[in-house]
Amino acid sequence: MKAALLGFGVVGGGVYTMLQEHPGWEVAYVLDKREFPELGEKLVHSIDTIVNDPAVDVVVEMMGGTKPAFDFVAAALKAGKHVVTSNKALIAAYYNELTALARENGVALRCTAAVGGGIPWLTSLERACSVDTIESISGIMNGTTNYILDVMTREGKEFAGVLKNAQELGYAEADPTADIDGWDIRRKLVISSNIAYGISIQEEDIPMSGIRGITAEDIAAFTEAGLVCRMIASSARTAEGISATVEPMLLPKGAPEAAVPLNYNRISYVGERLGIQAFFGQGAGRYPTAANCVRDCLDIEAGKRSFYADKAVPTTIRNEGSLRRYYVRANDAAAFADVAESKLGCGIVTRAIPVPEMYARAEKCSFFAALREE
Amino acid sequence: MKAALLGFGVVGGGVYTMLQEHPGWEVAYVLDKREFPELGEKLVHSIDTIVNDPAVDVVVEMMGGTKPAFDFVAAALKAGKHVVTSNKALIAAYYNELTALARENGVALRCTAAVGGGIPWLTSLERACSVDTIESISGIMNGTTNYILDVMTREGKEFAGVLKNAQELGYAEADPTADIDGWDIRRKLVISSNIAYGISIQEEDIPMSGIRGITAEDIAAFTEAGLVCRMIASSARTAEGISATVEPMLLPKGAPEAAVPLNYNRISYVGERLGIQAFFGQGAGRYPTAANCVRDCLDIEAGKRSFYADKAVPTTIRNEGSLRRYYVRANDAAAFADVAESKLGCGIVTRAIPVPEMYARAEKCSFFAALREE
Repeated sequence: MKAALLGFGVVGGGVYTMLQEHPGWEVAYVLDKREFPELGEKLVHSIDTIVNDPAVDVVVEMMGGTKPAFDFVAAALKAGKHVVTSNKALIAAYYNELTALARENGVALRCTAAVGGGIPWLTSLERACSVDTIESISGIMNGTTNYILDVMTREGKEFAGVLKNAQELGYAEADPTADIDGWDIRRKLVISSNIAYGISIQEEDIPMSGIRGITAEDIAAFTEAGLVCRMIASSARTAEGISATVEPMLLPKGAPEAAVPLNYNRISYVGERLGIQAFFGQGAGRYPTAANCVRDCLDIEAGKRSFYADKAVPTTIRNEGSLRRYYVRANDAAAFADVAESKLGCGIVTRAIPVPEMYARAEKCSFFAALREE
Repeated sequence: MKAALLGFGVVGGGVYTMLQEHPGWEVAYVLDKREFPELGEKLVHSIDTIVNDPAVDVVVEMMGGTKPAFDFVAAALKAGKHVVTSNKALIAAYYNELTALARENGVALRCTAAVGGGIPWLTSLERACSVDTIESISGIMNGTTNYILDVMTREGKEFAGVLKNAQELGYAEADPTADIDGWDIRRKLVISSNIAYGISIQEEDIPMSGIRGITAEDIAAFTEAGLVCRMIASSARTAEGISATVEPMLLPKGAPEAAVPLNYNRISYVGERLGIQAFFGQGAGRYPTAANCVRDCLDIEAGKRSFYADKAVPTTIRNEGSLRRYYVRANDAAAFADVAESKLGCGIVTRAIPVPEMYARAEKCSFFAALREE
């Protein structure tokens, strides 16, 4: 099998090494704007070279972002190439377009590395969907925020110092916005939910709050109350339709997510017949992520000719039936006077309110987190 | 696709329901000694009917035990039928014979439900092996023992009462030997290790100790010391070869396995590149187990034509390089005087000794458990 790689960064380099090692596989081209003398004639700067070469079986996209990734991937699918990608922004933003292109051209579109890095999450979810009805999804889908929350909880440090530490370790980007405010997680939740329920939802439709405003004082109060804060993406079938949120949650200290250390991920689904199944591992990193890309390539070699779900019914998120109690540190205490139920540290805990009601007041607090009751 | 089911018990009934619901699938025969009027003419009492019908694509064996399961499955493979089985005793005992028969006849042999019930453990392990070198496997592979240890730990009760309770709930068999003494777990460890390392090992070769002798007093001492007892199957590549044991282990109370509740399973591997990946879910039960059998059938329909590993190098277990500290409640304290390091409750903790040295003295104590250092 012949592969062309788009992007020769951290993941691209890992896929290059692993595919070249694999019997029966050859990397024919690597597309990158930069120069890499070690790649010799394999390095190309135009997608046309790849798309126009009938010998290329699979295009593996690891550039990140949507431009020019969408144009390149769309061109590859139209040219009858199978596509593997680790790009969550791309799949979340162009879900309908890309899955339709793959179907129309009878080729495979696989993106297992886009959610959970090296964890076989999407392939396990695909397996589960084929024999069961998925009722809900929930989990820690982002290593950066988990690292920050875990270290703050264990060492009592302030957010800014731990973020800086995470950046030094390579666990956080120079611009940490996508991770700490929830953008990265929300894209992973869109992809997972679309596959789990056979739907197609919009990123912007999912309420999202991040951990930028959390303080050591908040965490000390949670610990005192036997609670652990984790950044949780979740969605579920409800009476109203599909609910979904990305927000910090306060979990009992015995909850399985509370034991997830450092930059690890843990994601679970609940199936009507299967019950809960959970998956734990590295959500990022060169070789874990590359391994899922390579494994997607091998699945295509073995005959896989599809996306994970064959339906993509356009669906609007409905959170009005989801009631949660929230810990709130308010800028404007008066704005929460009508829903405050008790005090916790320097904040308050609300009575159970519909999720949209909390997000309507989000600007009036510097940090909030949902209490997950178990 | 046409399937024939061998066995119409708990799992067999679940597979029957799920396959009949699945588009493109039909259950042509059900073999069982008993009578089931609701099955009409599908019910047969002779394997010959199934083996001689060229319309049967897949035989799904869920009888349990090795006799007559081995003869039936071997006959099916020889007749060119794909085989799916949930039978761990069969696969562990006849690993070489059955994988060779599948290879010789160019058919698939799949047994995902044999380890971890409904958890996609073996399929994930297969995926990982194809792109990485597995260094070790470890986990809770048996719901019965986990239920007993978890309830004893949380409620302070004695073993006999909790076992009786587990039997009433259907979590333990009337004869609990296979579960509480480790036989069931050891078979699952054989299958997982064979696949992970491309080897073939013998059940009898793996040292095994159970939880029959554990008391509420032992558990109280563990809790006091911040330890949680769990039944752990583990194997690893070591300098000497492959090590493997099935024994109770004392884990720090923050360890992920310590949080596994009731009759759940949690199994993990460590890959050289993937790092640790762990899988959590129901290790038994009608529909979880049936779901993995059905999913194996769908993989075969999609073109899967193999077993999980393509090598089965005969290998002897080598534990002499594995040093562990053990908690020991001795019948004969003198037998451990030379290795005792400290006291714990009504027992002692040994210094780190080679695993075989502990098992050579196993008869001289009523209960022992390894301390896992982290």
